[in-house]
Amino acid sequence: MRELSIALLGQGFMGKAHSNAYCQAGHFFDLPYRLRRKLICGRDAAALARMAERWEWEETATDWRAAIDRDDIDAVDIALPNHLHAPAAIAAAQAGKIVLCEKPLALSLDEARAMADAARRVPTLVWFNYRRVPAVAFAHDLIADGRLGTIYHYDAAYRQQWGPDLSRAATWRMDPAQAGSGVADDLMTHLLDTALYLNGPMTEAVAVNRTFAPNRKVDDAVVAIVRFANGSVGTFEATRFGIGCKNAKTFRIHGSGGLLRFNLERLNHLEFVDAANPSTEQGPRDLLVTDLKHPIFGNFWRPGHIIGYEHTFIAALAEFLGCLSRGERFRPDFDDGLAVQRALDALQRSATTRAWTTIEAD
Amino acid sequence: MRELSIALLGQGFMGKAHSNAYCQAGHFFDLPYRLRRKLICGRDAAALARMAERWEWEETATDWRAAIDRDDIDAVDIALPNHLHAPAAIAAAQAGKIVLCEKPLALSLDEARAMADAARRVPTLVWFNYRRVPAVAFAHDLIADGRLGTIYHYDAAYRQQWGPDLSRAATWRMDPAQAGSGVADDLMTHLLDTALYLNGPMTEAVAVNRTFAPNRKVDDAVVAIVRFANGSVGTFEATRFGIGCKNAKTFRIHGSGGLLRFNLERLNHLEFVDAANPSTEQGPRDLLVTDLKHPIFGNFWRPGHIIGYEHTFIAALAEFLGCLSRGERFRPDFDDGLAVQRALDALQRSATTRAWTTIEAD
Amino acid sequence: MRELSIALLGQGFMGKAHSNAYCQAGHFFDLPYRLRRKLICGRDAAALARMAERWEWEETATDWRAAIDRDDIDAVDIALPNHLHAPAAIAAAQAGKIVLCEKPLALSLDEARAMADAARRVPTLVWFNYRRVPAVAFAHDLIADGRLGTIYHYDAAYRQQWGPDLSRAATWRMDPAQAGSGVADDLMTHLLDTALYLNGPMTEAVAVNRTFAPNRKVDDAVVAIVRFANGSVGTFEATRFGIGCKNAKTFRIHGSGGLLRFNLERLNHLEFVDAANPSTEQGPRDLLVTDLKHPIFGNFWRPGHIIGYEHTFIAALAEFLGCLSRGERFRPDFDDGLAVQRALDALQRSATTRAWTTIEAD
Amino acid sequence: MRELSIALLGQGFMGKAHSNAYCQAGHFFDLPYRLRRKLICGRDAAALARMAERWEWEETATDWRAAIDRDDIDAVDIALPNHLHAPAAIAAAQAGKIVLCEKPLALSLDEARAMADAARRVPTLVWFNYRRVPAVAFAHDLIADGRLGTIYHYDAAYRQQWGPDLSRAATWRMDPAQAGSGVADDLMTHLLDTALYLNGPMTEAVAVNRTFAPNRKVDDAVVAIVRFANGSVGTFEATRFGIGCKNAKTFRIHGSGGLLRFNLERLNHLEFVDAANPSTEQGPRDLLVTDLKHPIFGNFWRPGHIIGYEHTFIAALAEFLGCLSRGERFRPDFDDGLAVQRALDALQRSATTRAWTTIEAD
Repeated sequence: MRELSIALLGQGFMGKAHSNAYCQAGHFFDLPYRLRRKLICGRDAAALARMAERWEWEETATDWRAAIDRDDIDAVDIALPNHLHAPAAIAAAQAGKIVLCEKPLALSLDEARAMADAARRVPTLVWFNYRRVPAVAFAHDLIADGRLGTIYHYDAAYRQQWGPDLSRAATWRMDPAQAGSGVADDLMTHLLDTALYLNGPMTEAVAVNRTFAPNRKVDDAVVAIVRFANGSVGTFEATRFGIGCKNAKTFRIHGSGGLLRFNLERLNHLEFVDAANPSTEQGPRDLLVTDLKHPIFGNFWRPGHIIGYEHTFIAALAEFLGCLSRGERFRPDFDDGLAVQRALDALQRSATTRAWTTIEAD
Repeated sequence: MRELSIALLGQGFMGKAHSNAYCQAGHFFDLPYRLRRKLICGRDAAALARMAERWEWEETATDWRAAIDRDDIDAVDIALPNHLHAPAAIAAAQAGKIVLCEKPLALSLDEARAMADAARRVPTLVWFNYRRVPAVAFAHDLIADGRLGTIYHYDAAYRQQWGPDLSRAATWRMDPAQAGSGVADDLMTHLLDTALYLNGPMTEAVAVNRTFAPNRKVDDAVVAIVRFANGSVGTFEATRFGIGCKNAKTFRIHGSGGLLRFNLERLNHLEFVDAANPSTEQGPRDLLVTDLKHPIFGNFWRPGHIIGYEHTFIAALAEFLGCLSRGERFRPDFDDGLAVQRALDALQRSATTRAWTTIEAD
Repeated sequence: MRELSIALLGQGFMGKAHSNAYCQAGHFFDLPYRLRRKLICGRDAAALARMAERWEWEETATDWRAAIDRDDIDAVDIALPNHLHAPAAIAAAQAGKIVLCEKPLALSLDEARAMADAARRVPTLVWFNYRRVPAVAFAHDLIADGRLGTIYHYDAAYRQQWGPDLSRAATWRMDPAQAGSGVADDLMTHLLDTALYLNGPMTEAVAVNRTFAPNRKVDDAVVAIVRFANGSVGTFEATRFGIGCKNAKTFRIHGSGGLLRFNLERLNHLEFVDAANPSTEQGPRDLLVTDLKHPIFGNFWRPGHIIGYEHTFIAALAEFLGCLSRGERFRPDFDDGLAVQRALDALQRSATTRAWTTIEAD
Repeated sequence: MRELSIALLGQGFMGKAHSNAYCQAGHFFDLPYRLRRKLICGRDAAALARMAERWEWEETATDWRAAIDRDDIDAVDIALPNHLHAPAAIAAAQAGKIVLCEKPLALSLDEARAMADAARRVPTLVWFNYRRVPAVAFAHDLIADGRLGTIYHYDAAYRQQWGPDLSRAATWRMDPAQAGSGVADDLMTHLLDTALYLNGPMTEAVAVNRTFAPNRKVDDAVVAIVRFANGSVGTFEATRFGIGCKNAKTFRIHGSGGLLRFNLERLNHLEFVDAANPSTEQGPRDLLVTDLKHPIFGNFWRPGHIIGYEHTFIAALAEFLGCLSRGERFRPDFDDGLAVQRALDALQRSATTRAWTTIEAD
């Protein structure tokens, strides 16, 4: 079995989630490659050493460019602050590396275009990991099978509640130069990717941004109406002031065939109303998406033995490696990341111009 | 249309619920009789006058026997403390009246037998009103249609939380001579009637009583295991110390065909797992039992416009009057009340003897 | 006790709901008036006769103007198709009658202004009955007490699912001349009234309308973003294509003090996250709003003995009569109905112009 | 840091869960030992080789006794069929090994006593892993802090639905000689351990067993009433015929201070009614037990980023190693396993004798 040497750029929360994926993918999936945790890069040398020891990375470097320059690195995984996604990804792609990149793909649409262009010849992945929640993948299957029929409404929200916490002012997430924006780049991009995955292309949007915390330079909330190419319409709300919600990424889809509802805080569940049932027997079914016949889940445990947040990374990685070995396109790749960026760009322009704004198809 | 003159015995909470049913039945159902609220009896003359005015009872009497002696009363409805059920019902039946009686039917199995015997020739009703919750009636239909298949488990509970309230010590419900027992006569009888309705005859039980409040003379909780003639087994729990529950009468039924779950606190709902669905699509469906094709509901409002506690009395009364006009047996009648009493008697004997106790079929 | 003679205009579903309120208000509330169901008006004489008999209206008339001309009518209650609200209300007010009117107040903002002007000297009520859901009233109390703190997000939706039913094409609700619009006048007005009640004045909105059914002349869905004077922002969605929802009027309010969530399909419930709790003990509390100390509920039954749709009309009526007897302003009155109409007008103009549109304060 | 060499006996589902724990514990917890996955034993050599490769066990052996005889093994972890727990554990203990053992501890009370005696001098762990669900640990904390007050009711159930699957007839779980019993040893032991952990010692029980599947030699369901030393009483139900439930291990505890409810299928949640709240604000709080201040959770991810089944093993192992390094008693150890066995033995005798049966304190 061929070996694949990984360099992970980033030592934060995402670095931990990715490290875990590299450890665990081979435990639950039949991988076509033997993964080698070769190099981890980060600026805080002391913390980096501890992280490397904990997650068994063979080497460390305090400059992410070290990963680019080495010939013994096959894949570069970027979990750096947002403003470094473009330079790192472009450099890695130009060096012929496989490139995996955290979301959002870029700080701007132009940057995202440059990244997609640079990476045209290498396999890519964007860490919109929530496509690999079994319940989300199962929702996708139901829709693809026509079970939802004509879609009328697609509503999505992502609500966290740490916005009032002023102690986070010094982090890169609060600096427009490093984060691009606030909740828009952070949470809205997840909503947009899931919507593109489940409901297809968007045509136009109108949006408004709000910053509730005093002296904050990035947006705390983005609220939008989005129209889709399939004729449906929906509301999108991303907020760090969704008090009462810890990590509530939700969608609800009403179609002629029924209703689908999801909430990331209970990610093993998918609610489904099947309009094909007799009217007396229609009601939201709380599916515990842990059957061995459900997508993804069977790789982990037995029915009802639920999985969590980290498993979405493991499954995304395993599927990426499968595509890689078969020479197939993995989704979401940089082109998918670019599509998200186009939608985000339209929302942000709309928030500025206060006008309905077209979302370009490509 | 023939007129039916009613005498209501009782001026408490149940008197209010019954009064409402007499007012409202004709508004929502096509009744075969014109109901006349002729006479209300109760011992507190001042309160009785106010109640008669509020609910438009034509006359009052402070002795329930007044209702028996009058020829212009067709039906006697007994909502008195438990110890008066037997004398009032027997007297009314012997006088040829239609007899409606609150649950429990009697203080003892012997009393219940005497009542059923005395009422053999008159139409009767026992106010186990919860059979007329649309969700419960729909559960009954699903089971009758074989949708649940072979039943394995039938578990039931009725939990209220006012047990710690010592201020109720002076009410008749805390006096064994008037109430018979505590939660056994009060809430357990409801569980037993619903179980007989949904799951059929019981064969044996083992039970334990607990009194948590100091100096209380009646039971606060009864917990039992019950075996049914159909081979299923279940737990029964009635308690006034179910802290956190206001009025949670619940059942859950596991059969080869699926699962049914109900909670009176959300009485418009029935949860249904249909094991006939593919395994990936099985999960508790939260049916809002407010479709026009659901039993009972269509008489009231439109889908999703929910009903409440009082509607169960209205529907029971309307159905009783329909049976009366057609000369059909209404259920639950005194024989059904007697069946509950047989089961309750077995539970109470078991609590004393600490032994499994047979529940006689009749 | 003074008598109040009522004329009800309308014999449809709302006529039934109002008739029930007139019957029941005195049974559960201490009314300052003796209500007399004097006259019911409707165009279908045969059905009207049956309805009058069923609900004990003393007289009938096939022209609603009969109610205006009679001196023995104190109050006129308008439950006619929308386009008749203005002529009937203005005529009744000019005749010095108390005027109660179904929502929406009018077909247009101009009409609504004329109605409010005409009714300046008479007591009025608009049947935004959902203000009297105990859970909604309790939400109002919590907000008024400052428990929610600074409000960040106010999201509302009203989803029904009968849109695909083409058999309704011939009803007045599908005729713009009689209904004004589709779901906008029908369901969006309820959302707007509740929002004004709970979250105060709105400043601007952007909206989009959608008609999904072929050949339909009214809107099936309205989706909007609304900004409030208090700085909060929210999404509003009213739809008849909310497949999977029977009657799901919902709101969710995120404030610095916590979260409130409501769904009309489970109207006895209010979900509350209290951010004042320690972080380990915060979570949505499913309050069963049936405590005797909760607003409104105590007039009906005991804790956990739930109420339904119809009780909101009963409670609104009872409170209106109380205000009337004390010479106090009842809310929502015609001025409140006018405020709703101003917001609706802005949404509808926005849907046409595709621009953010100011909602005038008055 | 000292190294600890592990031998895992067992290559089935539990072998996988334990292997994962050995891999992952050091990634999320600061362990006092460096764990070495030295040896895995199982009878199917081919499958064992694959498993060793996948989970990076250094060596394999097809006879579990190999683990006992080697000096370079510090800890023996037994995940064999039930009938091998006693011989393996006793041999390992006598060889001075640290012993970890899957539940149930033994096939019989006598066996369990012998195991506890043999292991008196070595550190032990029984894999009642559900004590380390953060929600269960948090329930324990709330109770220990007196938040539940006097406990009145403790009800527990464990429902799975694979009982009707006759294809499992050939597995060791269906053979009394290897499994001891059916659902009693399998699921009821989990219920009993959690009850002892949360609600303390039991005094007596009455139970009934049912076998629903034809020709099956072990019990499919056990239903019991259990009385506790603290005066509370409860129902216990373990079943493989809980159709509609995948892995629903539940408890509900009513005390003077409120209510706690849990369901393993949503293991990140704990429902809590705090009776100390005003009556208008009491209701089940759905706590998402993923706060950094909650027990255990903070070692994994951020608030709202949920964990799953496997994390209970990881956390149990990490805590065990901490106790080991500090010379403290870990719970549940073999004495706790023995306590479960005493309760189980009483239930099983009661099912045979049909009598209330004392549960010995020790």
